[in-house]
Amino acid sequence: MNVVRRIAELRAARESLASPLGLVPTMGALHDGHLSLIRRAREECASVVVSLFVNPTQFGAHEDLGAYPRDLSRDLELAEQAGADLVWAPEVDEMYPPGFQTWVQLESLTKPLEGLHRPGHFRGVTTVVAKLFNAVQPQRAYFGQKDAQQAAVVRRMVVDLNFPLEIVVCPIVREADGVAMSSRNAYLNSDERRGAAVLFRALSAAAEAFAAGEREADGLRGVMARVLAEEPLARPQYISIADPESLQELEGQVERALLSLAVHFGNTRLIDNLIVG
Amino acid sequence: MNVVRRIAELRAARESLASPLGLVPTMGALHDGHLSLIRRAREECASVVVSLFVNPTQFGAHEDLGAYPRDLSRDLELAEQAGADLVWAPEVDEMYPPGFQTWVQLESLTKPLEGLHRPGHFRGVTTVVAKLFNAVQPQRAYFGQKDAQQAAVVRRMVVDLNFPLEIVVCPIVREADGVAMSSRNAYLNSDERRGAAVLFRALSAAAEAFAAGEREADGLRGVMARVLAEEPLARPQYISIADPESLQELEGQVERALLSLAVHFGNTRLIDNLIVG
Repeated sequence: MNVVRRIAELRAARESLASPLGLVPTMGALHDGHLSLIRRAREECASVVVSLFVNPTQFGAHEDLGAYPRDLSRDLELAEQAGADLVWAPEVDEMYPPGFQTWVQLESLTKPLEGLHRPGHFRGVTTVVAKLFNAVQPQRAYFGQKDAQQAAVVRRMVVDLNFPLEIVVCPIVREADGVAMSSRNAYLNSDERRGAAVLFRALSAAAEAFAAGEREADGLRGVMARVLAEEPLARPQYISIADPESLQELEGQVERALLSLAVHFGNTRLIDNLIVG
Repeated sequence: MNVVRRIAELRAARESLASPLGLVPTMGALHDGHLSLIRRAREECASVVVSLFVNPTQFGAHEDLGAYPRDLSRDLELAEQAGADLVWAPEVDEMYPPGFQTWVQLESLTKPLEGLHRPGHFRGVTTVVAKLFNAVQPQRAYFGQKDAQQAAVVRRMVVDLNFPLEIVVCPIVREADGVAMSSRNAYLNSDERRGAAVLFRALSAAAEAFAAGEREADGLRGVMARVLAEEPLARPQYISIADPESLQELEGQVERALLSLAVHFGNTRLIDNLIVG
């Protein structure tokens, strides 16, 4: 497996990689969720590039940029085992050189949910993803359903800006107790980690209610809220029943919905989601 | 020469074009300025694509989108004569489909000069140029120095977003009396057309003053203003002495500068520029 830091090295190494090329963009701190993306790319593509870059522009001023877990040598080992041909780990200075001033920004899709609670987050995401796409020039790019809104936003960006590639969104990978794999799970103490299972319990309870005939958006939100209330360490930030394409919050009767939520445990913010219908 | 309308057709036709591929993005109404770009691309590239698209998102609400000259059959003939292999003339609906919501936007470079007087103009330009780049995937793209700020903005976008291509900026092509070639010259009546030569006379007078030792930014602006004042049909909108890279307005002693101006003649707005030093 080849490892490069600079964009010029990446472009040179890119020349000898066969098509179709699959890109797995990550912020490092790789877990089984990321590895499932790399393995999927390995199955579907002739070559696989993994980017490792903790992108500062998608963190808010009071978020966890400084604390975000970083372990390059472990990430390289895991990426190689999962089947990466090339890892690109750029420096911040080269991604955002002096005078940098170009931003890619979406409108309605970035307004609700994560966008509402993390102003500027998606501007950072879409800008860096556009840069990764242009630098790597993949035919396919792999994203996790864990960040459901991010997946929808990136899909829309690809259509709107005519990027010549396909977005593949892969299922959430969960721990045995249902907790969605996340690099941020590492922040949790043992009580919080135990409590974190309430996110998936809440989503599952709403999905069961839906399966049993509950179609009222407020009813489904109420099911999630009641389950969350059973966990004293959980401080819910939002509980959403939204249209899976537009991400607009739904009212009344629901046929198909993205159930999603953000919950704080101490200083740690966790998100999870499930689609019903 | 091949002519395509839809993006899928473009992508299919693109497959058989040799690299390096040169793209000449235009809004049609081709004149000798555009043709100089196509000929330059023909000299430097193995294949040449010309796009013809009057991009609605770069026109302000009260600008000349509806009146902008359109003559597809003439443009096709001129593009072919100048050496284009493929012309891509997309429809507005396909470039901006329902739900379109992704914008590419620059900060400081788009604020002065044209950006100040045409709010939203450069957001439309950078968004459509990013789309053209992604759809055509050229190795080189050709722009005219006539739109000096546009050239600077597109260059910066290419660096910032890591587009894998080179921007080539070609000299302004002028009529015998010095008027810069522009599709908008077609709006001028014969008196206005005669008067339009004052733009280049003003730029040339300032360049001569610079050559003769005038280094004060205000002095150079004054030379341009005095020449413009001699033409009763000319209504100057701005007269600028700016840094050629940052486009920031200069004060005091000047070593190198972009001299630029925008002048109304009736309902027609003309721009021109010259670099000194």
